[in-house]
This record gives sequence, structure tokens and C-alpha cells, in this order.
Amino acid sequence: MNSVTRSSGRGRVRFAKSNLDEYQPPTFEAFDTTLVTPRAPTANALSVLDIDMRVVENKRAHNTSSYKNNNLIVRRHQEFIITIRFSQPFNIQWDNVLLEFLIGSTPDVSRGTYIILSIGREKSDGPWSSRVLDIQGNYVTVGVTPDASCIVGRFQTFVVVVSDLGKQRTVRNTDTDVYVLFNPWDPADQVYIPRESDRQEYVMNDVGIIFNGEFNNINSRSWNYGQFEQGVLDACLLVLDVGKVPLTYRGNATQIVRRGSALMNSQDDDGVLVGNWSEDYSIGTAPTAWTGSTEILLKYARGGGVPVCFAQCWVFAGVLNTFMRCLGIPTRVITNYCSAHDNTGNLKTDIVLDEDGRVDRSRTKDSVWNYHCWNEVYMKRPDLPDRFSGWQVIDCTPQETSDGLYRCGPTSVNAVKEGELSYPFDARFVFAELNSDVIYRKSDKYGNTNVLHVDTAYVGKLLVTKRVNANSYEDVTSNYKYPEGSERDKQTMNNAENRGIPTRDYLPRTEAGVTIDLKAETIKIGDNFMLTMNVNNQTSQTCTINATISGSVAFYTGITSANFMLENKVATVNPQNTSKVLINVQAVNYMPYLVEQANLLFVVQGRIEETGQTLSAMRVITLRPPELTIKVNGIPRVGKDLMVIVSFRNPYTFILKNVQLRLDALGLIPTKIKTYDQIQPGGSVQYTETITPQSPGRKVLIGLLDCAALRQVINQLEIIVQ
Amino acid sequence: MNSVTRSSGRGRVRFAKSNLDEYQPPTFEAFDTTLVTPRAPTANALSVLDIDMRVVENKRAHNTSSYKNNNLIVRRHQEFIITIRFSQPFNIQWDNVLLEFLIGSTPDVSRGTYIILSIGREKSDGPWSSRVLDIQGNYVTVGVTPDASCIVGRFQTFVVVVSDLGKQRTVRNTDTDVYVLFNPWDPADQVYIPRESDRQEYVMNDVGIIFNGEFNNINSRSWNYGQFEQGVLDACLLVLDVGKVPLTYRGNATQIVRRGSALMNSQDDDGVLVGNWSEDYSIGTAPTAWTGSTEILLKYARGGGVPVCFAQCWVFAGVLNTFMRCLGIPTRVITNYCSAHDNTGNLKTDIVLDEDGRVDRSRTKDSVWNYHCWNEVYMKRPDLPDRFSGWQVIDCTPQETSDGLYRCGPTSVNAVKEGELSYPFDARFVFAELNSDVIYRKSDKYGNTNVLHVDTAYVGKLLVTKRVNANSYEDVTSNYKYPEGSERDKQTMNNAENRGIPTRDYLPRTEAGVTIDLKAETIKIGDNFMLTMNVNNQTSQTCTINATISGSVAFYTGITSANFMLENKVATVNPQNTSKVLINVQAVNYMPYLVEQANLLFVVQGRIEETGQTLSAMRVITLRPPELTIKVNGIPRVGKDLMVIVSFRNPYTFILKNVQLRLDALGLIPTKIKTYDQIQPGGSVQYTETITPQSPGRKVLIGLLDCAALRQVINQLEIIVQ
Repeated sequence: MNSVTRSSGRGRVRFAKSNLDEYQPPTFEAFDTTLVTPRAPTANALSVLDIDMRVVENKRAHNTSSYKNNNLIVRRHQEFIITIRFSQPFNIQWDNVLLEFLIGSTPDVSRGTYIILSIGREKSDGPWSSRVLDIQGNYVTVGVTPDASCIVGRFQTFVVVVSDLGKQRTVRNTDTDVYVLFNPWDPADQVYIPRESDRQEYVMNDVGIIFNGEFNNINSRSWNYGQFEQGVLDACLLVLDVGKVPLTYRGNATQIVRRGSALMNSQDDDGVLVGNWSEDYSIGTAPTAWTGSTEILLKYARGGGVPVCFAQCWVFAGVLNTFMRCLGIPTRVITNYCSAHDNTGNLKTDIVLDEDGRVDRSRTKDSVWNYHCWNEVYMKRPDLPDRFSGWQVIDCTPQETSDGLYRCGPTSVNAVKEGELSYPFDARFVFAELNSDVIYRKSDKYGNTNVLHVDTAYVGKLLVTKRVNANSYEDVTSNYKYPEGSERDKQTMNNAENRGIPTRDYLPRTEAGVTIDLKAETIKIGDNFMLTMNVNNQTSQTCTINATISGSVAFYTGITSANFMLENKVATVNPQNTSKVLINVQAVNYMPYLVEQANLLFVVQGRIEETGQTLSAMRVITLRPPELTIKVNGIPRVGKDLMVIVSFRNPYTFILKNVQLRLDALGLIPTKIKTYDQIQPGGSVQYTETITPQSPGRKVLIGLLDCAALRQVINQLEIIVQ
Repeated sequence: MNSVTRSSGRGRVRFAKSNLDEYQPPTFEAFDTTLVTPRAPTANALSVLDIDMRVVENKRAHNTSSYKNNNLIVRRHQEFIITIRFSQPFNIQWDNVLLEFLIGSTPDVSRGTYIILSIGREKSDGPWSSRVLDIQGNYVTVGVTPDASCIVGRFQTFVVVVSDLGKQRTVRNTDTDVYVLFNPWDPADQVYIPRESDRQEYVMNDVGIIFNGEFNNINSRSWNYGQFEQGVLDACLLVLDVGKVPLTYRGNATQIVRRGSALMNSQDDDGVLVGNWSEDYSIGTAPTAWTGSTEILLKYARGGGVPVCFAQCWVFAGVLNTFMRCLGIPTRVITNYCSAHDNTGNLKTDIVLDEDGRVDRSRTKDSVWNYHCWNEVYMKRPDLPDRFSGWQVIDCTPQETSDGLYRCGPTSVNAVKEGELSYPFDARFVFAELNSDVIYRKSDKYGNTNVLHVDTAYVGKLLVTKRVNANSYEDVTSNYKYPEGSERDKQTMNNAENRGIPTRDYLPRTEAGVTIDLKAETIKIGDNFMLTMNVNNQTSQTCTINATISGSVAFYTGITSANFMLENKVATVNPQNTSKVLINVQAVNYMPYLVEQANLLFVVQGRIEETGQTLSAMRVITLRPPELTIKVNGIPRVGKDLMVIVSFRNPYTFILKNVQLRLDALGLIPTKIKTYDQIQPGGSVQYTETITPQSPGRKVLIGLLDCAALRQVINQLEIIVQ
């Protein structure tokens, strides 16, 4: 018997994990002719002169014309056409020609990384299909349809002429490479979304709005997603390569979104963005200073996969949105107001107050984020019961590890709403972000704490996203939650407890009949203002409340920085009545401590003298920054110069130092950055840029001013280029 | 207002991930006495002279006496007692004393890493509870009960006397450290298992049997789990430290078993064992040469967490069994005969035959392991519906990554049986190991393949584990599968398809009415033997079968090494009849190619002349190694010398080189290793060791001989020490 080399006791299966690594098949593969009797004359052998990928018409048919990329880009499960020019007329009865698509370094038919399609005599029955559409002498036009779950990425294209001697293959030509993307237009694709308006918004829209501020004072900023900009698609594939995502998994949208959520942050895996909440961004760009994703992804790609500095939640969500839309997955950014970050996994957010009534920062480990941004992707979940398909939460801001890595999701929004927390992935964490109770505790010097008050309604107050084809917000809270206190809401909480969410073993909510809340109007940074404490007495007794109101400066993550105010107020409220107590807040007190995004956190801790009951409430006030103005001179027309003027005046009594001004306009100019060493009190800056529109349509100019003392001064201007 | 340092915008939450890192609390913490009025005289202050952990009696009550470890070891949710000796009589009305248990570098009450229990005036209400059992003058005896879900690991113990001036703490003393383990005896613990006999087998038994061989010729080997041996408990905690498992997760059995399964293999995370199936083990110990876990875990710990070379599946399963039993989680080793390793995740195992009928090794990427060992752990799954509690599969042999890391499980056995594959973790992979279909394909030179035959019954033939309190095997197949072809089985397959398992889109099973199988008797390495091919004809026509039988040498993983035989046989079988065809297999043909564990794989590919139908079958024959004998001279008695004689004769015509002989006997001697440069053909070796039993009872002596040419020559002898 023939002896062979002894193989290893495990198969030598290697998983290709990079789209950049390529296998170069030989241009000629000889058959062992000693074993074969030639079946046909081999003279005048057929050869391939040219492959035309029909880029323009295929792209138009596949909704990929917007990509600034010269190669063919198609979507799964939709036919594209290729015309092959042979050296002589093609005979479909006699000639044996194969069309090959290869991806990665170890192409293999059984893994979907090596596609072989027959277009002549022989028939093949792989997952992709092909048909000859037309033969005109030497020209053969072939239709090719990738299967609905095929790998997403960049494939090499070859044409092979098979003779009895062997296989003659075309030489490698990157011009014939084809990108295959997810197809939200096709019902067989995992990411199919039925409405065309949804596809236009969630896949095709490359400029969006991300909401921030506070739930009763919603603010927003524009974001350039830029998924079609030159180099962005390659950057997105590079992200998957750096993340060593096996090619065989890249046709599975569940895997792509789970891994994508891990790969937007640099933790664990050299992902795209470095999170930073420290206020020191000197070695990079401040999270507040970015105007869109393109600059970030291109920087990441130029560096060959070196993480970009710095991001906070909206930057993570913005870039993840670009990544998903670029690959063809319907995606949107969600803002959750009052988002709990439950470090201890117990569905309680503990706010510990010290003996004076201020937040005890060493003992308060949990926090309620003023707002938190994540993403939703729309897809079938073939791994779950049908009712959990649809919108799925993914969150790439590094908060907690999920099964060992910093990532979160996909979590079915429907499952969160029903409290069905057993199914993958991370439903528990998302559920806690929306449904945690806030427990106010008071601590003494021995380290003992006791519960002052429980607020079950503070967290997950409001969830919004940009409305389809409009710049206003859509309230999506009811996708995530039944109304607070309703029967269905109770059922959800029961379901959650049956799935291992710890039971609420703390004190029941006090039913004092007396409630307090805090309010203020829209206030600009640097203003003095009145904070109103409303005390509502629903009981039949007069009540006297003795309240301590503390004010501190806070990050948007709810982490307090400096205490700047502590006041005592006593109010007597008649039965069935509300009293207003006014608290004077002076800019001179808070200005020295202000941190980025200018949030003030007020906590009231009260005691009802008549009953001894305690109650608490908190409120975040987001101060508005001064205005940046953007104007254009003239009517925007294609090919005609247009002047853009961005201006700003420093309204403060202090100097603004190291000021960065960004001007960004997708499809008009690359991001422009201008820096000013300082802007004097009362001083103004004006920046002018001349642009020449190359294409007509709606364009959005985004202007942004950022410095350590003043973050997120942003404005936008929509223009229609004629 | 008081100014404070500006904190970062994210909480500085650090997760302690090591039990070895310690926080040293100060021995005195002063209160800020300027703010406090002393409430009692501080003269004659109480102080602590001694803490008695009552090790012997506590260990007896907690089923931990077997651990060779001088510290106290207790189980969760069961009271243990401590006696504190004070400098003066203790007054429960006046004195304010705290008992503290700390784990890790950042102990924190809200995370369960800092336990504070009051045993005097003040009351505390943390998760652990305490009560004063007895006061005898200066001596106070306290009962302490950890909560049922508390962290498992080694805690520091302190006693604190609180006065108005501050807290006086005892100095660090490692003798008072206490290990807290899972408690399978307690109904409130996640790992509770009701029957005492199960606890004795699955937690307390430190010697076991692992089954191997083939499903109709079951073989076994003894394994020393050694979970109570000196240093093993610390080694297991070190594994979790090396794996950076946050201390806060270490009370959650689901997390411990999932992470444990990742940490037994060195891939990703510097876990305990390096997998090697290459036949070259020269830089370490051959997987076949180990006799138990102790040697491996202690080597890992001595190296400070350097992975140990080498392991295959039974070694991984054996060490994981030790790890789990050591921490108190009921665990057993399962052997699955004909275990599919489905590389492509499609529930099909493709065996590709070449044009001659031999296994085409370059095209066969999947394999059916002759046997594969994994573990089951018994636990509640609070994260899942109730019916999925009970036995859970975990598998630490690195086969495929699960969510990015090499690990598998916990997977509910019940969920696998029902085809409920949505729930975490890895149910799909385990399901495929048991339920894949074997597809025989024939390939031609163009790379085209077509289906010859489908066998739905080959994979997952039999699952066994060691019987409770016996050395025989228990058949647990029905825990995993309904009978092949039954209604419930079909329902399971339907459920699986509804959970995203690809549909069976290949050819239906041929209903030819003709079946073939291969058989052989028990055969020793080096024997010539007869292989029998049975052709059964259930049709009413005579059939003539033209069959090719190929023989190759194979690893236990199903990977073939060398082809050594190819024969053609023609048989004519009458209607309703069976024909036997005998094939002569010569040792001279297979001996030169034999690989470890000596498996021969025979594949038959047949064609029925009358109908043109094709069929295939395969069979693995495991050849038996020669015998190793173990004897003792004299009656084993405590304190009396006993002579153990291990002997072996080389029955072959070739020299055995670099032979390693191991003798292992838990509780009698540490593992002894003796090496022989060579054993001549027909030559014998005899190894004698004198041992002196230190304790009475049943002991198991395991002898093992191992060299490159002959693996897994193993025997055992049970003795009763009087």
C-alpha cells in the first residue's frame, strides 16, 4: 500500500480571520493526464480576454451607487451581471467554464469561502446560483446570485476554462473584486426590513441626529455617519479583520452585530475607539469635539488598526451606526434618558447620602446616566423564538463585560419589554438600564446605611430616536416598557424575577402621600437661576417638611464632581395642596467647578416633621452653551463657489484657551479643523471656508467649537445644492 | 462651599479579580473625635487575645475533613462556630464588636467582598448572619452563616472592637483564614443535589473511572481526581485568579463552571493544560501517560500559572472534574461514543471518499471522534426556565470557540434532549455532537462531490458515566436523546430546526432495504484478524453487491493517518437473507503505521448491481494493548510496609524506547515515575516500590506504561488497608 505522511490526530482546520489575507490560486492546474483519456481536442483552446463587472448598472440595481468606491458592490440574494469576453465564440454545449469567487487565505467550498459556479457544460449546485443570460459571439453575460446568508466582504473574482489537460484561470485583477453586503431589501435576508422609508432612513441616510440633554429639556446634535465616504467600507472590513472575526461567521448578522459591538471599543481587542471620561483629552480629540464617524474610521484604518482617542457614548453609538449601515444592516441610535448603570447587577441603583445630605461619592458606586446612547439593529433572530425578532439593542460603550468581553447585545427589545431575560445576549443588563430602582440611603460613620426613599420611576424615563425622514425625535419608550405600574408592567417585573433577577428585598416604597420634585427652566451656562422645589401633599393633614437641598456639578454619567451648594428649607403644606419653594442658584458658585456638558445635579432629602417619614428626589439640570452661528453667502449651486462663515463670541469673563473649531459637510468638504490659542472675554472669532459643491441635493453643514472650559458648542445648517 | 478634587466622569469602580491579592485593613481606624461626643468611658478597653476557628469540629460538620489543608474550610449557608477570647469579660449589652471577613484587594460591602457582622450592641443586616451562642467570661462563641450565594474562596478573618475613639482590629493572621465552598448539601445553594449517595460520588469521591475504547467494546481507565490533596484547593483558586475571574462572580455557579471550562485549556487565557494531538509530546508528558489530576494541578500552581503539557479530552475532563469537586460542585465525566465534531456548524459530518473508495483526507474536514469526554455539573439554572435545571454539560477540550473563547457550556442536558437550542450556553454545539448525520460523499477530480449514503444513527451512539458507588458504567444516553426515529425524537429535530439549525437539505436516506455493517472481535495490537462484512438483504430480490473496503489507521478523534488496505469483494445475497464476507487483516500491514490508542478505521463503499444504489458504512476497531500487572506482597495494614510490584513484558518484535512507568496511589504515595531507555523484544521489566499506608480504607493503585510506540498500557489494583 502507498505510505503517506502521518497526519496529526486533529484535523488541520484553520479558520481564515481576515478579508485582507488572500489566497492566490494558480493560473494553471494540470490534471494527472496519465490517468485520463483526453475527451476532446485541445487545440484552439478557449481563453478569457476580459471580465466586465458592469459596475454602474449593478450598483444602481443594488442600491450601492452612493458608495465612493470604484469596485462592484452588491447585496446578497440579488442577481448581478457580469460579461466575459472570450478569445473565440463560446459554445454552451461544449465549453466547460467556471466562475470563482474567493475570500480569505484558506478558501474552502464547504465553508462558503470558495464559490465555484459553472457556466458551461458541467452543472454545479453550491449555495450561489448562476445562469447564462446572453451569448453574443465571444461575449457571454452571466447572472450571479449569492445566497441569502453568504459571507459579507470583499471577494476575488476568477474565470476558469476547464480542458482535459487542466484548469486555466484568469490572473488576479483587483478591479474585478466584488463586495457583497447584507440586503435589507430582500425578504430572505436576515436583515430584511419591509418599509422602503425605513430602509432609506436606517441604511441609506448618512447624516443623523443624536439626542442628548435631559428628558424634559431634550437637546440634540447632528452626526455625519458617512457610511458611503471613500475608504469607509474598507475600514469597516478592517475592523472585522483586526477583531479576528472568522470569515465563516461573517454572513451571520447576529455574529456581526455582537462582534461589532465589541470592536467599536478598544478594550480587549484593539477596537476602534478609546473611551475616556477623565476630562483630560490632551493626547487625542475630546469626545465632544467630533462631528461624525468618517474622520474616526479613516484614522483607524490609516493607522492599520490603532484605536482612536477619544469617545463617550454618543461617539461609540455614532461610529457603530456607520459600521452597521455601511455593511447594510438597518440601524438607529437610541437615547435613553436616566439610564442606570447598575455595577452590582442587583437592579438597584444606590445613591448614598452623607449625614449632611450630600451625595457620598466614596460610597455611591452606581450611577444614573443623564442620558445614554446605544444602537438598535433590525434583524431576524433565527436562534430565538420568532417573537424576539425585530429591533435588537447593541451597545458598544464599555460599561460591563458580557461573557468576558466589553460588548452588549444583540438583545431583543421585545424580550426586554416582556422581562424574558433568559435568551442571549445581555438582556439582564439592558433590562437594568431601564428598570432599576433608585434607592436613596443615608450613611453614618460606622459604615451603616439605611434606606431613605425608593423611586421606581426615575430610571428609563424616556427613550427616543430620530424620526424617519425628519429631524425631530420619535418616542420609542413603549417599545421597551409597559406603562409604569400597569398590570403588564407588573407581569414583566415578575417574569424578570423568575429569570434570576434578584427580588426586591429592600423596603417597600413609602406611601407617604407627600411627594417632592425639583424643576428649573432652560438655563444658559453662566446664568443665575431659580430652582423650584414643589412639595405636593395628597394627605388630609397639614405637613411640615424639613428639606436639605444639595447642589453638585455632575458629568452626564451621573458621577458628581464638586459640591457647590447646600441649603436648608422648611415648608408647611396644607392638605391636598402644593407648595413651591424657590432656591436661588448663583453662577458664581457653580462656574468654578463646571465640568464638560455642564450638568448640575440637585438632590433633596426631606423629613416630614409630623410623621417622621423621609423622602428624596433628584434632578439634573443641563446648562445650555452659548451659540455658534453658521451662514452661507449666495445660493448653493453645483460647481459654483460658496462661502461658509462660522462665528462665535465668548460671552464669559474668562479666556477660552486652545479652542478647536470644526466644520464638516458630507459630500462637500473633508472635515476642516481650525484652532485658536485663545478667545478673550467678549471676543469673537469668525472662520470662513470656500466650498464648491460637486453634486446637487440636501447637504448638512455642521459647525462645532470645543475647548476644555466649554464643550459641545454645536450648530448645523441645511442647504439645498441646485 | 468646600472644594474637592474633581473626580473623573466615570466611577472609579475596580473589580478585584484575584483571591491572592489582599487588602490589609488598618489595625486602628480613628473616628473624627472633634465631631463626636464620647458616649462611654474608654478606659479598660476591651481587646481580642485570640480567635479559635474550631477547625476540626467545623470541618467535620461541613464535610470538609478530607481536605489536606490546615485552615478552616466551610460550605455556604451552613453555620460554623468561632470562639473569641477577649482581654476581659464580654458584655453583650455594652460592647460593640464586629467580625469581619474580607476577600481580595478592594473589599466592598455592596459587592460581598467585605462582610461585617456585629456580635455586640449594634445590629447589622448584611447577607451573612451571626449569633452569639455562648459567653463564658472572656470567651465568646459565635455562630456564623454565610449566605447561600456568597463568594467561594479564601477570606481573611478579623475581629474589631469599636469604641468611641475608633475601631481596633486584630492583626492579620493567615491561620484564621477561612475557605468558603459551594454546598451541595444545602437546598438553598445553587448546586444542591438531593441524594447523599450522589454527593458521595460526585463531590466526595476522589478516584474515578473514565470510559474509552469503542461503543461495542467499552474500555476504561482509572483516574485520580485528588481534589482533597494538599495544595489542590489553592491551585483551583489560582486557576480563577489567572483567569481574572472577578471575585463578585465567584458565588455564581453558572459563572464558575463557564469560566472553569475556559480555564482548563491554555488557549486564550493561560489555562491549566495544553492540548496536543500531534503524537510529539517530547517537551512534556504524553496525554496517555497521566494517572490523575493532582500532579497536573500542583505543577500548574508551582509554575505560578504556566500551562502544563499535554492533554487530550479525558485529561481535560479529569482535571475539570477535580476542579469542580474541589470547589463543591457535583460533577461527573461523560463519555460520548461516536462524537461528531462539526466544524462547519451545519449538523452534517461529511466523510468524503476518493474515486478509489478511500477517505479523502484533504476534503474531509469534519470528523467523528471515536469517543469524546466532557463533564456534567449538577445545578439550578436561575437564569433559565425551571425545566433546564439539573445536569449541565461543560466541555473544556478546545474544539470550537464559544462567543470568542475556547469553552463550552453550561448547557442544560434537558434542553439538548428537547432540541431547545435558544438558551445559553452552546446548546447548538452539544446538540451537533450527538445528532449530526454522517454523509458519505464521493469526489471526482473537478472537485465535484455527490452523496453516496446518509447515516442518521452513527453519531452519539452511547453516552456513559461511572455508576454511583460502583466501577461499572451507567448508560445515560436517554438523558440526552429520545430513541432514534421515535415521535419525540422527530419533535426534537423539528424544535432544533426552528431554532436556526440548518434544515436537512441533502438527499433523503436511501431506503434500499439493503444494509451493510462491519464487525470484529476483541483484538490485541499485533494480531492478524478477520473483519466481517454483513450484508443484509430485506428486499424480495436477490442482490449483488460490489464493495470496496478500505482500512486506515486512525486517531481516537476519527482523523485517519495512513491507508494500509484496500480490497474489493463481491457478494450475492438471497432475498430476506444475510451474507457474511470475511476480510483478512494482517498485522504486518497495519503495524508500521499504528498511531496512539491503536484504532483501525474501516470504510466500506458498496454498489448494488441490480439497482445502482450506493451505500456506505464505517467501523472503528480499537486494538487492545498488552497487559501490565500490579501485585502487592502481604496484607495491607496501617503503619506496616507493603511491597508493590509492577511488571510488563514486551510481546513485540521491536524495541520499546524511552518507556515511562507511573505508579500512583492517592493517600499512599505521591506519583512515582520510573523510566527505561528500552525494553527489548520479549524482554520484561519489573518495578518494586515499598509503601507504608498511613490511614485505613479502600485505596486504588494505578500503574501505567507509556512510550511513543505503545500508549495507554494501564492497570489498577484495589486494596483495603486494615
